[in-house]
Amino acid sequence: MEPVHDTLRHDAPDSPAGNALMAAARVDLQALPGIPDIHPGDDLAAVLIETLQHQDMALNDGDLLVIAHKVISKAEGQVVALADITPSAEAHELAKQINKDPRKVDVILRESTRVVRAVKRPEQDEGTLIAEHRLGFICANAAVDESNVGAEETVILLPRDPDASARQLCARLEAAFGVRLGIVVTDTFGRPWRMGLVNVAIGLARVPARIDMVGERDAFGRVLSVTMPALADELAAASGLVMGKSDKTPVVLFRGIDWRPCDSSANELIRPQQEDLFR
Amino acid sequence: MEPVHDTLRHDAPDSPAGNALMAAARVDLQALPGIPDIHPGDDLAAVLIETLQHQDMALNDGDLLVIAHKVISKAEGQVVALADITPSAEAHELAKQINKDPRKVDVILRESTRVVRAVKRPEQDEGTLIAEHRLGFICANAAVDESNVGAEETVILLPRDPDASARQLCARLEAAFGVRLGIVVTDTFGRPWRMGLVNVAIGLARVPARIDMVGERDAFGRVLSVTMPALADELAAASGLVMGKSDKTPVVLFRGIDWRPCDSSANELIRPQQEDLFR
Repeated sequence: MEPVHDTLRHDAPDSPAGNALMAAARVDLQALPGIPDIHPGDDLAAVLIETLQHQDMALNDGDLLVIAHKVISKAEGQVVALADITPSAEAHELAKQINKDPRKVDVILRESTRVVRAVKRPEQDEGTLIAEHRLGFICANAAVDESNVGAEETVILLPRDPDASARQLCARLEAAFGVRLGIVVTDTFGRPWRMGLVNVAIGLARVPARIDMVGERDAFGRVLSVTMPALADELAAASGLVMGKSDKTPVVLFRGIDWRPCDSSANELIRPQQEDLFR
Repeated sequence: MEPVHDTLRHDAPDSPAGNALMAAARVDLQALPGIPDIHPGDDLAAVLIETLQHQDMALNDGDLLVIAHKVISKAEGQVVALADITPSAEAHELAKQINKDPRKVDVILRESTRVVRAVKRPEQDEGTLIAEHRLGFICANAAVDESNVGAEETVILLPRDPDASARQLCARLEAAFGVRLGIVVTDTFGRPWRMGLVNVAIGLARVPARIDMVGERDAFGRVLSVTMPALADELAAASGLVMGKSDKTPVVLFRGIDWRPCDSSANELIRPQQEDLFR
């Protein structure tokens, strides 16, 4: 992947070191208002286009949209009614260990390739399964979420293929507005070693997962060897600053990011197990 | 810690669920241009005040500044000349294992309370020590960094007490501009399970580490149980979008964040080992 330059540069050119008059890099993010509740079968691209047009908002070349996966999952029908689930024996067993609804555990197991850990701490009513999701992400409960689904007894899964969802949405929005865009699909994850939740990228269209700066030079002319900012995760985390808690603002528009479109996938953000120095 | 409301609210009030005309949350971030190279003994607060005033930039009530720790570390003299280091026997031993300069290893050990892992992968020239820093952060090489220090044979440490550094800077800037501010001090960390680097918060002044939403209601009126966005880490990660690689823009100004000042510490972002479900 090449460094981000040229075509979608808005400002912030590399200035000569020490130039006190360099232009300031500037980024603007705003939550798109007015997005209605999304239901299975909705045409999310059409809803977003209509919402933008209704507010006389155009998208510009180089705009980035960061989208909470839930609206995509809902539109794609990735919603499971727990009443329809007959838990497996394994699900019953694990559910008993961590005091969790065996139907939820069953859904989590179906979404996972392995359970990393099953834990219930004394202060928790209900335990947690840290699992490797079929898409490779390691996260709590295989990203199966029960918050904000409207009805009590349903859970939301990740989109079947979040990169594909992002690309389809991107193509539709690009066609509608006649511009080039990038999309990051997010979920909210806990983290090893650090408290609190942040949004991370789980699906990408055109947006580089990471910026490869290896071989470029730092401010003192030294060649950088390992600098690899996770651009997509920076965008995802930043979106949390305006997404808010209500899920009524699942789409955040970023303007002013210096980026170059590429064929990317959120898979590039998954650290191969053998490379994980931190484990 | 209370939820963020009231005094420093700029926009983005909680709208009634389903109100399509709610105001859009909007955040602006910009790298402060024109900050000169910082050297040991510099008065960083004075430098920042002068840089802002020189450009006719005022700070407003509620502005947040996210600052890469390196300028603070440099100003505080947290720079070590490797020529001054006589490595311990332990440092020599570890250095041999992972093909690293024993003087660097010695500095890393001095900054650490324990080594989590010492690794050298075949493709690495020089290995990595994953260590628990004396401040509690688990990170590569105890955050001892050799990039961008100007001279070849020096390394930069974290500030002695990043929260204290943040608070001192905050008080000076608040006094100079007659406003209330928040400061997040960052470093760039790798992450378990995910590729690429992101900035994280290692020091805080007034900025809540996390937003406690437990007990608040989601968009469907359900009481939230575990939603804890790591606000300080969201700000830190977002700063990477404009900080760029050159280290010439170590300070990023955020406007439009909905936050409430509190007594905070970056320690609140360190997950107690016994709570870490992910390990």
